[in-house]
Amino acid sequence: MSIVVVGSVALDSIETPSGRVAEVLGGSAAYFAVAASYFAPVNVVAVVGEDFPEEAKATLISPTINLDGLEVHPGRTFRWTGRYHENLNMRDTLDLQMNVVADFAPQLPEHYRQTPFVFLGNIDPGLQSRVLDQLAQPRLIGCDTISHWIENERPALEAVLKRVDVLIINNEEAQMISGEHNVVRAARQILTMGPKMLLVKRGEYGVLLFSPQSVFAVPAYPLEEVSDPTGAGDSFAGGFLGYLAESNDVSEAGLRKAIVYGSVVASFTVEDFSLRRLQSLTRDDIEQRYRLFVSLTKF
Amino acid sequence: MSIVVVGSVALDSIETPSGRVAEVLGGSAAYFAVAASYFAPVNVVAVVGEDFPEEAKATLISPTINLDGLEVHPGRTFRWTGRYHENLNMRDTLDLQMNVVADFAPQLPEHYRQTPFVFLGNIDPGLQSRVLDQLAQPRLIGCDTISHWIENERPALEAVLKRVDVLIINNEEAQMISGEHNVVRAARQILTMGPKMLLVKRGEYGVLLFSPQSVFAVPAYPLEEVSDPTGAGDSFAGGFLGYLAESNDVSEAGLRKAIVYGSVVASFTVEDFSLRRLQSLTRDDIEQRYRLFVSLTKF
Repeated sequence: MSIVVVGSVALDSIETPSGRVAEVLGGSAAYFAVAASYFAPVNVVAVVGEDFPEEAKATLISPTINLDGLEVHPGRTFRWTGRYHENLNMRDTLDLQMNVVADFAPQLPEHYRQTPFVFLGNIDPGLQSRVLDQLAQPRLIGCDTISHWIENERPALEAVLKRVDVLIINNEEAQMISGEHNVVRAARQILTMGPKMLLVKRGEYGVLLFSPQSVFAVPAYPLEEVSDPTGAGDSFAGGFLGYLAESNDVSEAGLRKAIVYGSVVASFTVEDFSLRRLQSLTRDDIEQRYRLFVSLTKF
Repeated sequence: MSIVVVGSVALDSIETPSGRVAEVLGGSAAYFAVAASYFAPVNVVAVVGEDFPEEAKATLISPTINLDGLEVHPGRTFRWTGRYHENLNMRDTLDLQMNVVADFAPQLPEHYRQTPFVFLGNIDPGLQSRVLDQLAQPRLIGCDTISHWIENERPALEAVLKRVDVLIINNEEAQMISGEHNVVRAARQILTMGPKMLLVKRGEYGVLLFSPQSVFAVPAYPLEEVSDPTGAGDSFAGGFLGYLAESNDVSEAGLRKAIVYGSVVASFTVEDFSLRRLQSLTRDDIEQRYRLFVSLTKF
């Protein structure tokens, strides 16, 4: 089964304790697409400017990534500049240029509209709904959001939440949406707002999956070197939805396996800057680390 | 098999977002002993003052807790006053009175000296060594410490670390001892200092076990209500060493099961203030939550 992703394709400038890079490929749709492409075909919906470098585009070219929905608009590509603290769980945004993303109104190519699996990367929730309007009969819809939309676009966010199957956010976002500090109470509250399931990403501490019937918790893979945490969440979502689309198994057991695959892919992403490690994976690398995950957590 | 624990028995005054209590039973040896007593006989080594209330002592009375090593000295019992933030991972110490603990020089009753399992709760590392000197042939030694000793008693701490099997500390303490931010590198460093294994407690995020051959990660049980996190770490250690002493299985598989039992017991402790929930457990409660832990983590 295939997946459609809408999100950003960006040029990131990043500083971490391990080093710095300038104007490298980033953005939620880029990380998601490459991560998911190891499992299933991905249809990308995003916009870049006329300055988008050939080299960055080359990273996205793959037999399982369809770029027909990657629009090139007059103007400059979305840019983000950030710096991570010694504690890699914290980062500051130093500069943000929306550029061509400011006027983006996603228009799905005709041949995308039957895609069964959907990931709404963190863009304006009004645009997320607009993407859903263009899809015939999605089988499973995943959705991300960020504090900016929770604070400033609450009604549009609540409208899209009513339509999604799995909301994939971090701890702080779950607290903001629900007004609850405790993650279990936050989850219970969010599950009344529409999503059938809530995935809470906790960075180096792993992931929690809440559904009305059950809770699943999995630690993150402990890494000796984390070069750049950027894109970990979107890579996680890519591995998660990628595995679901490949297996077409959305049972509780299937979801749990998909979460571990998402965690595996994210653990590779952070080992190098930008998509460098992610783009050079083999399915065998992924399966090997999946087995390490089993031995990491088995008791 | 039995366990000997040395640590504090205290009167705690605690404020959390859920409420406040004054002069209730606390201290590492108290939490540890009650937690471990569900699994194996525990020999307590600690000191209290003449003001130690009968009611607090009654909480420690159990067929599987031996209080022959609980000395009563002239003066007042150790007291700690603390306040937790809305985020329960953070707390401030408002007052600390060493009282009778200041001159404590643990002297093990003769019939404690063959005890095979040992837990050195967080007291002066010089005293921890002194306890080990009095033990004939311990099978497994667990040890805790805190930032105060890491900063101020480094040589004594390094001396005791050479003798312990499992160091049981939190993330920040692991960083302080090793000088490494990354937990995997911190663990590798600490394992060169003596301990055969390192258990890193991460509060609501669970526990990591490092040995030279392997890593084990387990999440914490997600709780809807956390009333008072005090004693969670010592209860964890009590459940962990308690299960090891009961099973006498210190293989990798045995250690992993013991960690889950420790996590289970700690998850009960934080549901109420002081030892209230911990003291009223049944083994059946523990087994039931152990099974919930299995379904929480299985994939």
